[in-house]
Amino acid sequence: MPRISTARERMVVAATRLFQRRGYHGTGVAEILSESSAPKGSFYHHFPDGKEELAAVAVAAAGLEIGRLIDSCFADATSFADGAKRAADAIGEWFEGTGYSEGCPITAVHLEMTPRSGRLADATAQVFADWCSRVAVHAVRLGVVPDRAADDSALGLVLALEGAWVLSRAQRSRRPFMLAATMAATLAVSG
Amino acid sequence: MPRISTARERMVVAATRLFQRRGYHGTGVAEILSESSAPKGSFYHHFPDGKEELAAVAVAAAGLEIGRLIDSCFADATSFADGAKRAADAIGEWFEGTGYSEGCPITAVHLEMTPRSGRLADATAQVFADWCSRVAVHAVRLGVVPDRAADDSALGLVLALEGAWVLSRAQRSRRPFMLAATMAATLAVSG
Repeated sequence: MPRISTARERMVVAATRLFQRRGYHGTGVAEILSESSAPKGSFYHHFPDGKEELAAVAVAAAGLEIGRLIDSCFADATSFADGAKRAADAIGEWFEGTGYSEGCPITAVHLEMTPRSGRLADATAQVFADWCSRVAVHAVRLGVVPDRAADDSALGLVLALEGAWVLSRAQRSRRPFMLAATMAATLAVSG
Repeated sequence: MPRISTARERMVVAATRLFQRRGYHGTGVAEILSESSAPKGSFYHHFPDGKEELAAVAVAAAGLEIGRLIDSCFADATSFADGAKRAADAIGEWFEGTGYSEGCPITAVHLEMTPRSGRLADATAQVFADWCSRVAVHAVRLGVVPDRAADDSALGLVLALEGAWVLSRAQRSRRPFMLAATMAATLAVSG
């Protein structure tokens, strides 16, 4: 039996998708409640600090989900280039499936709230750091040396994926994701 | 004598900087008026369609400014790699000068308004396309062949710079910009 999601979980998922489409400030609490079919009174019960608290939870949850997706892409990879391509393909496919309308949930919050909100600046920075750490571990395992090259390849892949998410939205094409993978792979070789 | 800016120009400049810091929806008309010291009644006189109209003007103006910056970086470049490095250095330096708080003005509007607003989706897509065209012309001039490789290098540089603007904000470091230039340069060689 599928696990029945709680109102709190539904609010986090709804907020994440709304942030992806229209950003943090463009998303109101009323819309989050409407999208999640949550009772109006429950919002401040679950998130006493309001939308900022919910966003911190949403960023951490979406960050973990994407981090695991990246791990799964690299798990069967035969090389860093192969893993980078699988990760770019997976995110590009996901994005295309949303009609190129749901961008990176972390960046959506990050670009409006860093450095203004210490809480959200920390939450988003932690996710980017986590992704870089995960990719760097895979890079080392797949033979990228020295460690500095592994770190560069990891940061290179993460920033290229973020840039691809921006350009892909404008071009309505997955080509930026293909280039992102190619660029990160060359960095691993030339590092 | 410096040219005296009009209230309309001051509103465009103020809106651009506010979008860079907190995004489109996070920026209110009252703040734009306050930052630009423009008379309250002048906003809808200059922008009858409101904030969306102002944002389209701001995106086009900032896009042109950054496009010219990119051109100036490539003008004296001895190779595509050199031009990419100069462009990444210039944008990274500009960003550091804002305390890593003023991101790309185009992306700030794009991620909240594409595809929701046809007007702003078009305005932001046109800027990205313009940047890619400019860089591709420089790539061809600097010997990147075939044309497909020049187009790939151009899109690669633009997306890497956008990604660097995101990661640099989280890391409070210019290292992502250095990597962006390196990645785009390897694409030009391997294309």
